[in-house]
Amino acid sequence: MLNVHLVPHTHDDVGWLKTVDQYYYGDRNDIQHAGVQYILDSVVDQLLKNPDRRFIYVETAFFYRWWKQQSSAMQQTVKQLVNEGRLEFVNGGWCMSDEATTHYSAVIDQMTLGLRFLNETFGSCGRPRVAWHIDPFGHAREHASMFAQMGYDGLFFGRLDYQDRAQRMIKKEQELLWRASDSLTPPMADLFTGILPNGYNPPTGFCWDQLCNDPPIRDDPDLEDYNVDDVVKRFLTIANSQAMVYKTNHIIMTMGSDFQYENANLWYKNLDKLIHYVNAHQANGSKVNVLYSTPSCYLQELHRANLTWPLKRDDFFPYADNAHDFWTGYFTSRPALKRYERISNSNFQTCNQLEVLGGPASRKGFFGQGDSHTMKKAMAVAQHHDAVSGTEKQHVANDYARRLADGWQHCQVVVSNSLAALSGSTDKRMYCDNLNISVCPITEGSKKVVPVSRATQDVRRSRGLAINELVFQVQAPPLGYSTYSVSQLQDGHPPASTQPSTPTEIQNKFLQVTFDPNTGLLSSLSNLETKQTIKLTQNFYWYNASDGNNLDSIQPSGAYIFRPNSSTPFIISKTVKTETIQTSVVQEVRQWFAPWVSQVVRLYSDSKFLELEWTVGPLPIHDNLGKEVITRLDTSIKSSEIFYTDSNGREVLQRKKDFRPTWNLRQSEPIAGNYYPINSRAFIKDDVDQLTVVTDRSQGGGSIQNGSLEIMLHRRLLYDDVRGVGEPLNETSDIFPEGLVVRGRLLLSLDRPPVAADEHRPLAQQVVLQPLLTFTDGDLSPSTRLEFSGLQAALPPAVHLLTLTQWDKDSVLLRLEHQFQSWESKLNSQPVTVNLQKLFSTLDVLGVSELNLSANQWKDEMKRFDWMPQKDEKPQLKTVRDPSPWEVTLRPMEIRTFLLRVSLR
Amino acid sequence: MLNVHLVPHTHDDVGWLKTVDQYYYGDRNDIQHAGVQYILDSVVDQLLKNPDRRFIYVETAFFYRWWKQQSSAMQQTVKQLVNEGRLEFVNGGWCMSDEATTHYSAVIDQMTLGLRFLNETFGSCGRPRVAWHIDPFGHAREHASMFAQMGYDGLFFGRLDYQDRAQRMIKKEQELLWRASDSLTPPMADLFTGILPNGYNPPTGFCWDQLCNDPPIRDDPDLEDYNVDDVVKRFLTIANSQAMVYKTNHIIMTMGSDFQYENANLWYKNLDKLIHYVNAHQANGSKVNVLYSTPSCYLQELHRANLTWPLKRDDFFPYADNAHDFWTGYFTSRPALKRYERISNSNFQTCNQLEVLGGPASRKGFFGQGDSHTMKKAMAVAQHHDAVSGTEKQHVANDYARRLADGWQHCQVVVSNSLAALSGSTDKRMYCDNLNISVCPITEGSKKVVPVSRATQDVRRSRGLAINELVFQVQAPPLGYSTYSVSQLQDGHPPASTQPSTPTEIQNKFLQVTFDPNTGLLSSLSNLETKQTIKLTQNFYWYNASDGNNLDSIQPSGAYIFRPNSSTPFIISKTVKTETIQTSVVQEVRQWFAPWVSQVVRLYSDSKFLELEWTVGPLPIHDNLGKEVITRLDTSIKSSEIFYTDSNGREVLQRKKDFRPTWNLRQSEPIAGNYYPINSRAFIKDDVDQLTVVTDRSQGGGSIQNGSLEIMLHRRLLYDDVRGVGEPLNETSDIFPEGLVVRGRLLLSLDRPPVAADEHRPLAQQVVLQPLLTFTDGDLSPSTRLEFSGLQAALPPAVHLLTLTQWDKDSVLLRLEHQFQSWESKLNSQPVTVNLQKLFSTLDVLGVSELNLSANQWKDEMKRFDWMPQKDEKPQLKTVRDPSPWEVTLRPMEIRTFLLRVSLR
Repeated sequence: MLNVHLVPHTHDDVGWLKTVDQYYYGDRNDIQHAGVQYILDSVVDQLLKNPDRRFIYVETAFFYRWWKQQSSAMQQTVKQLVNEGRLEFVNGGWCMSDEATTHYSAVIDQMTLGLRFLNETFGSCGRPRVAWHIDPFGHAREHASMFAQMGYDGLFFGRLDYQDRAQRMIKKEQELLWRASDSLTPPMADLFTGILPNGYNPPTGFCWDQLCNDPPIRDDPDLEDYNVDDVVKRFLTIANSQAMVYKTNHIIMTMGSDFQYENANLWYKNLDKLIHYVNAHQANGSKVNVLYSTPSCYLQELHRANLTWPLKRDDFFPYADNAHDFWTGYFTSRPALKRYERISNSNFQTCNQLEVLGGPASRKGFFGQGDSHTMKKAMAVAQHHDAVSGTEKQHVANDYARRLADGWQHCQVVVSNSLAALSGSTDKRMYCDNLNISVCPITEGSKKVVPVSRATQDVRRSRGLAINELVFQVQAPPLGYSTYSVSQLQDGHPPASTQPSTPTEIQNKFLQVTFDPNTGLLSSLSNLETKQTIKLTQNFYWYNASDGNNLDSIQPSGAYIFRPNSSTPFIISKTVKTETIQTSVVQEVRQWFAPWVSQVVRLYSDSKFLELEWTVGPLPIHDNLGKEVITRLDTSIKSSEIFYTDSNGREVLQRKKDFRPTWNLRQSEPIAGNYYPINSRAFIKDDVDQLTVVTDRSQGGGSIQNGSLEIMLHRRLLYDDVRGVGEPLNETSDIFPEGLVVRGRLLLSLDRPPVAADEHRPLAQQVVLQPLLTFTDGDLSPSTRLEFSGLQAALPPAVHLLTLTQWDKDSVLLRLEHQFQSWESKLNSQPVTVNLQKLFSTLDVLGVSELNLSANQWKDEMKRFDWMPQKDEKPQLKTVRDPSPWEVTLRPMEIRTFLLRVSLR
Repeated sequence: MLNVHLVPHTHDDVGWLKTVDQYYYGDRNDIQHAGVQYILDSVVDQLLKNPDRRFIYVETAFFYRWWKQQSSAMQQTVKQLVNEGRLEFVNGGWCMSDEATTHYSAVIDQMTLGLRFLNETFGSCGRPRVAWHIDPFGHAREHASMFAQMGYDGLFFGRLDYQDRAQRMIKKEQELLWRASDSLTPPMADLFTGILPNGYNPPTGFCWDQLCNDPPIRDDPDLEDYNVDDVVKRFLTIANSQAMVYKTNHIIMTMGSDFQYENANLWYKNLDKLIHYVNAHQANGSKVNVLYSTPSCYLQELHRANLTWPLKRDDFFPYADNAHDFWTGYFTSRPALKRYERISNSNFQTCNQLEVLGGPASRKGFFGQGDSHTMKKAMAVAQHHDAVSGTEKQHVANDYARRLADGWQHCQVVVSNSLAALSGSTDKRMYCDNLNISVCPITEGSKKVVPVSRATQDVRRSRGLAINELVFQVQAPPLGYSTYSVSQLQDGHPPASTQPSTPTEIQNKFLQVTFDPNTGLLSSLSNLETKQTIKLTQNFYWYNASDGNNLDSIQPSGAYIFRPNSSTPFIISKTVKTETIQTSVVQEVRQWFAPWVSQVVRLYSDSKFLELEWTVGPLPIHDNLGKEVITRLDTSIKSSEIFYTDSNGREVLQRKKDFRPTWNLRQSEPIAGNYYPINSRAFIKDDVDQLTVVTDRSQGGGSIQNGSLEIMLHRRLLYDDVRGVGEPLNETSDIFPEGLVVRGRLLLSLDRPPVAADEHRPLAQQVVLQPLLTFTDGDLSPSTRLEFSGLQAALPPAVHLLTLTQWDKDSVLLRLEHQFQSWESKLNSQPVTVNLQKLFSTLDVLGVSELNLSANQWKDEMKRFDWMPQKDEKPQLKTVRDPSPWEVTLRPMEIRTFLLRVSLR
């Protein structure tokens, strides 16, 4: 008997063509007909009509909105449906996060937010067993690793490279075991992964939603067009051919799609009939059995089958749905939003930490009531696969940014309250959120805090009054703060002035950087400690975005898709105008490539990395050509067309030009088909040299030539790429009516490969979690505590404090991670033990309980299905005991999550 | 306090863009999203959620389909909702009939079918109190009269002339008392009539169906765009301005539209909130009270107001929604469908009568099982305002015709069985349904039944083998049959041959008809008995249909709208080619106007009327001009631009050029704005002459010049008229690939005005209910009864047997009508008494109960609201008693409906 699992589901984007709240309410149906409030209303009604019916729900951001508007009677009803397994949550995060452009820190937070709500609302019956990433445009290994550590029994998704799918269908390898970490001991990061048969849509001809036009089952013989026999026949054909490309006698069909089930009756009425009539055929010898099911129920049957499954160790990037349709543009789309999301995460983590350290006074204190949950939700929705991905409509992108800004306003009160409690000073703190465009009233207007010492020629659009820049070096204690006072001197040193000269080199004690005197471009980079030097040329180029009028196919470049019209990018300028500035703290070479491209090459005196601060935009479009701007580093490194990128900011994967580890690639897009997401870093290396680039946001990049690494910085496109968003990615705003200007930083380090990670691991964390600046006007009250650290001592270099956040009144959630992969550092890739009771300087840890990664299950209760890989022994996880309940050992790439019962000292 | 009655409703066309069954199931949603099964599912669910909620349902054709698929538990639930007034049926006919192109006989039948189902299913709580004709494109007085006699307390509709509405708004006359008969004693045909404020749509901004895009009420202050205050403010503004144009402190809002409430939750959830928030404003002094309501509940409040209402005596034709947008094209659209519907009604009445007369053997007899209900339903859906009106898509028109044909197949078995029972002969009967195109295998092939004596030049497209035509005179007894035998003689008279001559006159003992020898056209008509003669020229013309590129407006002619490009039609030919034929039975002059227009002027020897059998089509469109073909009769009658048309085949109304009885017309379309529906007849007259034209189907027509009467016969259009149907009215088919050919008859009589009705009343009934021909091959069995009448004697001339149909096992439904208006005949406009026990020759009448017109209420229980007209005394219906229970008196234009308990003798 072939068992067909029908899985009724809706896919509810947490913002895309409409904002998340527009989707919730069903507002702006002129843009897209979609109203999640009605979906949940309708599904619950329909589930109650037939106990066989099943439904899965995914996005807790929406479910939460709905739940709090329900009567307690309805809440009770829903609980019963959940307890009976008729309504099942899958995935269950606040959103279905993007996999290419998200940072693991924010993904873990958003999953935790969603799953916590489910846990607290429904208990263990509400805990999703299955990860469900049906829509993200490619799949990150780190996501799979996280899902495994969150206790999911398996992952299902819908999108993968069309060549990959074709081969997997032939080989019946659409269900597999993903070994998602090269550092964690299997099966810690092993995740059963199922590729759904039809994306996440129903089979052709069987879509019965109000948004579809497939013929309903017409089973009244008195009416026209009785079609039961036809429907049954078509269904059996589809079921049997689907069974040919899967291994077991169970197959799954996703009966739903985007925002479907707003009128669930249409679906269920016809599905009831389908099940009835198809199963009735068993009396005539049919061997097909159809049933309402859920992914976890289907997964259980696969597990019961007790088969072995192919092992996969790489990831599912890039995603192409056709020969010229590589979804690699969104790796960079909306670079300003991507950066703002990253800054917001940094601020949010600071907010969380200070909320803990400042105690209850953080939330309700001198500066009033603040909260971190507004920002928590804003950050969570920003992880959605049409949010930070940049694939939403402009007004929706604005909404995500607005939410983050609003969340940050709430957090600022927490931060101010907490700092007041910690420092003893109730002086008003200001946050200067617009320092990126050199706007900050207090530093512009106050005599006590005046920016000095730096001219502002490179600030393209100064909107404030500042004409100088103050640069000085500070040292902040871990999980703490320092205070600096800045006063305007009557007779200070004059500001350093820029020299309109062509530099030949800049250097500090660690690095030497040379420039080509003829072009003004970088020419080499040396590590003075290791005495290694590489040739290094860096320049800016733009690809001409396809407008869809190619001979090969009509696919244009767009928000999702990167498709250059030619594989050769246009150089923006072969030579650059330069100026240099040298102070005791910083050396800068300022390069002008075009009116819309400039860069500061910056070397701080104590820095082991070279900073390239690029400013790109507004991209000119008067020539009616869409542009995708890259910077390219061309080096003498013999990288053999191999480069490395991180996965969601954590483990690094090797990428090889025109190559995929699991199938014989027919490359059809020589540039776009070699682009990969860079979340925090990329590097090229040979036996002796490794050039690592740490980025300040997610970007796309590739290594098209030996020794070369290119990163896409900005995109401006004139055509929609026909994947639904319905707008060209052409960002303008009130502030940038001529087109968006974006600024960002690339941090370069040159090292010997075996020790490179010792630099780039902490460096990338510094970029992700940057210090928060607050400003106070005038003198501080004398009793102010000027410096503080929440830690008793700095953590060991391998250990990163990933999460410190208030959980409930008496407890905090702590995540510590080992930030090195097992192979990347002789020094740091070692287990390291931390004593939780000796961690905090101001908190007494009264109790410790370990949780799974998503904090919705006690670690010792987390039991997952075990799956047997093909050609491999079944992995045996050695249980390694901690030295004591307080002393926890972290192994490479391990994240451990603790609920600490604490009291403020 | 202003009370706002919100009436949730759906308007479900019984076929339009999709067939009735496609609408029921929600099939072909690619054409239009609409699925009535889901509407009813959804509404019942939602009504159960809140006892305040109300819903009205209208079209029993759909409700019936749904009801029979429900479980008995669901049926019980629905009964309870009906009993509690939460679900209310309004109108309740099988469909919402068209008013311009339907015949009263078929309208009464379809209303009876729908209302009977409701009565039998729900009892008196299911009896609609209100007629609800929100969509028909103009409103017939006869419909109002029928509704009054069906017991409705009032009528609501949505469409009326835009000038009429404007004036009624100013004068607060949108609610009125319609005195719908000039013959029936008031208030027998008085009907309170309400014009809805917004067609049948919700006010702007308040459409919350899934088919609408108005913003939902967003009342969660935590989410974006909280809009409760805005919604309430907008609603109060609309309610208050609506109250300005109505008389009472109650107003109605129709919250729904075409095929809405498929997902009723959207509507009700937002209406619940609207009511809550608007009424909450009463605490702030708001004087607006909103409530869920129904039309009958609203009507009750109007009645309670105890006001007087303006009296209306004319009708609401023609309907224009703008200066150049007269909905007068559909009076003629799809002339072949209109004729087929009329023939089908005739056959259906024959079927009903024979089912009664033949007894149970009619339904299950020698020829198997037959039924009349298939045809009853087919006829009922054909009355829908997008069916016989001709305003549906082509595939839907085909479906209506197919249903009628299918119904007739079922009826043929009844007829054959009944005739077998009545005649004693079981010889197979054939029906020759294609005699209109001279196709009938039996009369073509059999030696015993051979058509003879007539050449077939005028049969434009002979598809069979017949080359001759047999014409002979027969006499059929009332409610009975005669049998004639036709044999081919070895040496018979040769067939009469045609003479290609130009005739000067033809005549019989009643009429003389002259022709102009120069043109071949008619030139005069004389009544030899009354010795009156008029000049009469008749010719064919076509209006050039507007293509929408006019300067005045962009409205093209289409299925609904008639808009000639010029007021002067093109003449098709000034002279005609003629042939004549003369036999003892018939004289014919055959006229060829063009390859696509011909006519037979036919005078039977015993006939008091002249027959004009026109054949028009295929209308040529190679010139890319849409054409609307008329025939025009130009006479010497001094008609002063006044003419008369019947209303739904019954009472006659006066029409005057560029004039409306109730307002000062600004005429903007000199032709289309003077067109009126002609259902069965039209006439012009002066003091001495009345020329009456009886038609064989509904058509549009006008009298644009003094003494002139034009009738539109056929239309072929190249553009859609943007009223939703989305197709140009350009009929082609497999049989008519070059375009539809239509044939029809106009019957002319010339009389003195005071006695004209004595001729045209019975004549029109003869055309409506034509004898059914059946054919039998070979000799009849000797015992065959060759002649039969179901009546003991012919009815008095004023009395027409409208309905004789089996009701249940032991009883039949009988409708007798007085077919004269009170003023039109000295001879016949008199009360007449019929003895029901002496009516039938083969039925014993054991009991008699009188019903209302729609047979869903005992006549003596029918109590309607009494309404007081302005400027008129309150009418007092004098109760006139019948001489005895068996002897019933019919007064002019009265229809009386009886349920007779009968037994076959």
